[in-house]
Amino acid sequence: MTVTVQSFKDYLKKIKSYEEALNLMAWDLRTMIPKKGMDQRSEVIGQLSETIHTLKTSEEMKRFLDELPAEVESDPVMKQMLNVCQKDYDRDSKIPTAEYTAFVTLRSKAETVWQDAREKNDFSMLAPYLEQLVEYNQRFSEYWGYKDNRYNGLLDQYEPGLTTDVLDPVFDELKQALSTLVKKIQQSDVEVDSSQLLHYFPKDKQQAFSLSVLDKMGYDFDAGRLDETIHPFAIGINQGDVRVTTRYDEHDFRTAIFGTIHEGGHALYEQNIDSEFALTPLAEGTSMGIHESQSLFWENFIGRSEAFWKSQYRSFLSFAPEAFQTIELSDFYRAINEVKPSYIRIEADELTYSLHIIIRYELEKALIEGSLKVKDLPEAWNDKMESYLGIRPTTDREGVLQDIHWAGGDFGYFPTYALGYMYAAQLHEAMSKQINIPMMIQTNDFEPMKEWLTEHVHRHGRMKEPLEIINDVTGEGLNPNYLINYLTEKYQVIYQWN
Amino acid sequence: MTVTVQSFKDYLKKIKSYEEALNLMAWDLRTMIPKKGMDQRSEVIGQLSETIHTLKTSEEMKRFLDELPAEVESDPVMKQMLNVCQKDYDRDSKIPTAEYTAFVTLRSKAETVWQDAREKNDFSMLAPYLEQLVEYNQRFSEYWGYKDNRYNGLLDQYEPGLTTDVLDPVFDELKQALSTLVKKIQQSDVEVDSSQLLHYFPKDKQQAFSLSVLDKMGYDFDAGRLDETIHPFAIGINQGDVRVTTRYDEHDFRTAIFGTIHEGGHALYEQNIDSEFALTPLAEGTSMGIHESQSLFWENFIGRSEAFWKSQYRSFLSFAPEAFQTIELSDFYRAINEVKPSYIRIEADELTYSLHIIIRYELEKALIEGSLKVKDLPEAWNDKMESYLGIRPTTDREGVLQDIHWAGGDFGYFPTYALGYMYAAQLHEAMSKQINIPMMIQTNDFEPMKEWLTEHVHRHGRMKEPLEIINDVTGEGLNPNYLINYLTEKYQVIYQWN
Repeated sequence: MTVTVQSFKDYLKKIKSYEEALNLMAWDLRTMIPKKGMDQRSEVIGQLSETIHTLKTSEEMKRFLDELPAEVESDPVMKQMLNVCQKDYDRDSKIPTAEYTAFVTLRSKAETVWQDAREKNDFSMLAPYLEQLVEYNQRFSEYWGYKDNRYNGLLDQYEPGLTTDVLDPVFDELKQALSTLVKKIQQSDVEVDSSQLLHYFPKDKQQAFSLSVLDKMGYDFDAGRLDETIHPFAIGINQGDVRVTTRYDEHDFRTAIFGTIHEGGHALYEQNIDSEFALTPLAEGTSMGIHESQSLFWENFIGRSEAFWKSQYRSFLSFAPEAFQTIELSDFYRAINEVKPSYIRIEADELTYSLHIIIRYELEKALIEGSLKVKDLPEAWNDKMESYLGIRPTTDREGVLQDIHWAGGDFGYFPTYALGYMYAAQLHEAMSKQINIPMMIQTNDFEPMKEWLTEHVHRHGRMKEPLEIINDVTGEGLNPNYLINYLTEKYQVIYQWN
Repeated sequence: MTVTVQSFKDYLKKIKSYEEALNLMAWDLRTMIPKKGMDQRSEVIGQLSETIHTLKTSEEMKRFLDELPAEVESDPVMKQMLNVCQKDYDRDSKIPTAEYTAFVTLRSKAETVWQDAREKNDFSMLAPYLEQLVEYNQRFSEYWGYKDNRYNGLLDQYEPGLTTDVLDPVFDELKQALSTLVKKIQQSDVEVDSSQLLHYFPKDKQQAFSLSVLDKMGYDFDAGRLDETIHPFAIGINQGDVRVTTRYDEHDFRTAIFGTIHEGGHALYEQNIDSEFALTPLAEGTSMGIHESQSLFWENFIGRSEAFWKSQYRSFLSFAPEAFQTIELSDFYRAINEVKPSYIRIEADELTYSLHIIIRYELEKALIEGSLKVKDLPEAWNDKMESYLGIRPTTDREGVLQDIHWAGGDFGYFPTYALGYMYAAQLHEAMSKQINIPMMIQTNDFEPMKEWLTEHVHRHGRMKEPLEIINDVTGEGLNPNYLINYLTEKYQVIYQWN
């Protein structure tokens, strides 16, 4: 085989084609497939994943990576494509195959055990699996190599370029500020009551309103669709086919509406990557954190803003049943922004959510560093909940057993959720200097915000690293102050402290 | 690589996994995909098809085919797997790659030209493409090799083991008999009027009735689903996931109801192949003709029978709008069985349909043999229509330009539609000896028919060749008399000739 730029592109196209097939199978598995098709489908997904893995770590790929860099010196796009492939190659080829297979098997078992352990509220069932999964992750990080802290090797998988020496002080500052805000809110005399939102709201009406909001956001229905699932997600199958799903709770419309806006934000990212990158590994979001910044920007900075409901409330009421018609807009706005420390991360409000994340970050970092033992995890979890949120779980089910991530062998993923909040706030601040966001929202014109995000974030795909995007847009690196300021201003108005 | 039975099975599993991905992409392309996703999807489908083609004709496959037969002498299933793979290998490896690629490109162009030519009613636009496509098919058949007639090489792709020396006399007999029946019906005094069925019938109600019929047929909804498309189809994605689609015409319910039953018949076949064959090439229908026999058995022998409507009419009326409530069952039954020679194949009734097929068979065989020129095709078409059906098309749009098959490079496919009718009649006759079909239908018990078909047809997958199935069940080969007798008896009752 002759190694040429063209043969490399053909090779990448082949990988991306298999990934398109894989993504469609994954979407179908969660939305459409009849139950008897699932077993074989899972096998087929495994088969195709293996093929992709083989292609990314093949001798052929190695030759591209060894021989092409000299040739493409003056072509930044090709250079970045090689970088991205080199990274995948390194990650995947450095772990001995047998060890990785054993890890995958263990992880799959641990996920099953986790379901059982959570149901039985028995952490000791899961503990031996977690111990092994931690050890695997420690070894993987050693194989990959890292700077300073072993946890950095894991973090880099999800947020390339980010390290604990950046994250630690940022999370400390954020934690401090959020805990202070939580206390102020708890001491506030203002009563915010979200239970007034819990009226029956038929699914088809929720869907119609969700579709109208997606449409206003600029989600392109000629390049996507909205379906129903248990766990909502967005998935880019190809650049003209980026699908979102949502879940309808007929007794709490917030699940579907905010879920749709959130996934819509992810989808706008994938729909608006430069088409020049189609069928290459650059046609993806650049990191989990930046991806999450897009979903959270739309969900919170737009979807939970006062301006948004001022402009959408009439439309909302036109879909909503009788029981909603007497809720004043100002009460409604406060109710969807109620802050209340709670045990479960995925039910947390905009303000306390990052505290849940920081707890997980601190714990998983300590596990990987070796300064915390798995057996001490439940106690450590509860202590941190009490310290940061002022509430102490009484069972592990509402504590350390609530998330699947660790049982799934994922360490280093959690912080990206909180990064998304901070990035979103930084982007929001930068955007505000150029666009009067509330005014645009109130005139029902969402186009400028979407265009701005496309210009500064979406179109670049993986051409830019996450912190490069943030730096280019804001002139500085990761900075928690914009999120802190935004939350302080917003909730000061709602909870009216001095 | 060591060639072992296990490595062969793994290899087949890999091929089948890619085929599952490909089938899901094909289903999605016709049901779910947003329009901007189609271009890249088509490319990806091409990429995956190429991968499958490469796997089926690889050096590795050749080694399996060369080295394994001695080892599996006593294992009939493995032997048949090797047979089937050998066949694919021969077909795909004998055509020079460059020539096949040129053919695929030409075919794709010709399909586009065909759409235009049909719209403009201008056969001369398509003729030069057809000439080349005929030449390609002639050469392909030479590459593959054939017995007696060059057309047999093509026919064998779709109906393994069938040849023109069997088909010619069978079609002659059938043609004769059907033409006679058509004349008797035209001379009959009985007025059958299907226009009384053309009332508005809302889509959701048609769907509900269609679902109820699929359910009664024994279609397993835990292993499939019903969706909407422009061109209905059934597709086996895996054995626990066999999907059907239908089209709803709100002004003619027959499209959806009989379309659903037809596709449901195809789906029952794929749902009931022995699970022992999963992830091997035996887990498919054995031929186009046998597949069509299953769809037509359910659509016509069950779905258009008097017994069926006696048992289902009350249910039908419960979904149907007011305007249907005054139609007497006997009128309804006659109306759905109206016979009327018409120009368009896909709108033809049960009786004249096979005449449309025989015309195409005779013409395409003459083209491949070289005794008919493409330029003479429209005239030859119209002559045969007049001779067999008593009507002469006045435009090529309602004549030779109506089907996409030839523009798509498919020669040898058409006869399988009529084979399906004859096989279905033969199976129906054999089944009738063991099961009182009308009585079962009238007691709403469809299980015995489904079980019988599973036992004799479905479960075998590609373990048996088509004529082997027919022989094993009926004790004889292809025989048109059962279809002729069935149609004669049925329509004599409806049209009451002497």
